[in-house]
Amino acid sequence: MTETTEKLYLDDLRVGQRFASGTYVMEAARIKEFAAEFDPQPFHIEESAAEASVLKGLAASGWHTAAVAMRLLVTGGLPFANGLVGLGGEVAWPQPTRPGDILHVESEIVEITPSRSKPHQGIVTVRGTMFNQHREAVYLLTAKLLVLKRPK
Amino acid sequence: MTETTEKLYLDDLRVGQRFASGTYVMEAARIKEFAAEFDPQPFHIEESAAEASVLKGLAASGWHTAAVAMRLLVTGGLPFANGLVGLGGEVAWPQPTRPGDILHVESEIVEITPSRSKPHQGIVTVRGTMFNQHREAVYLLTAKLLVLKRPK
Repeated sequence: MTETTEKLYLDDLRVGQRFASGTYVMEAARIKEFAAEFDPQPFHIEESAAEASVLKGLAASGWHTAAVAMRLLVTGGLPFANGLVGLGGEVAWPQPTRPGDILHVESEIVEITPSRSKPHQGIVTVRGTMFNQHREAVYLLTAKLLVLKRPK
Repeated sequence: MTETTEKLYLDDLRVGQRFASGTYVMEAARIKEFAAEFDPQPFHIEESAAEASVLKGLAASGWHTAAVAMRLLVTGGLPFANGLVGLGGEVAWPQPTRPGDILHVESEIVEITPSRSKPHQGIVTVRGTMFNQHREAVYLLTAKLLVLKRPK
């Protein structure tokens, strides 16, 4: 596991390298506010409707969960020198994220593809898993990120 | 293109069926606020840093763009009777989303898989594209959604 405050360039990365983020507490009030703005469905907003739903209790919008994962990655979870610039990826939510959950992300570099046309950059594929405090995976992200080489 | 206020069940869906959402205007202030909370990188928060970045100007976090697409889908863009319950999918951001962009989502059903173990539900794969006012695709989403059959 790489734990460092050093910022990493493409030259510093290798397949199999692993990173861990800090933690984030998912608050019920923020779950409801986020959902009211971006995912206004009863099971993200109102406890009794949530209990009766397929989610069997209040749960964060999957896009709220995804946004929290990004916060954890940007604030130390994936210390790339040029920041985290994503081109796309795959997402999955194997378990709901609940109020009070304490979340963190563990990531691994699974592929590094230097650009043929732009020699100062490459595409790095990162597989991240966000866990709750019971070590249940609540969010899976495989993302393709644009990463720059160290300036000469 | 299906334009309806009727809520649809699994029985009502067919491959090739298409839907269009309403519109959403992406405001600069909200871009910066969302980024400050979930994606605190200079190119999402501060104009001059954004100009100097790979994004060449202020752009919304990809996860903000994804959240706006969800809002457009939930508020009429994809009128499924049991709501939009996503299991996972693929995302891509072919172009940045900019302040002032007027966004909408067009969706198409690409696969319907009835559940073998749970006869009252199925998995529906939807491919959505979010366009800006220049009809440039800014976000692509292919999502697997849990959809219920009409109650008997």
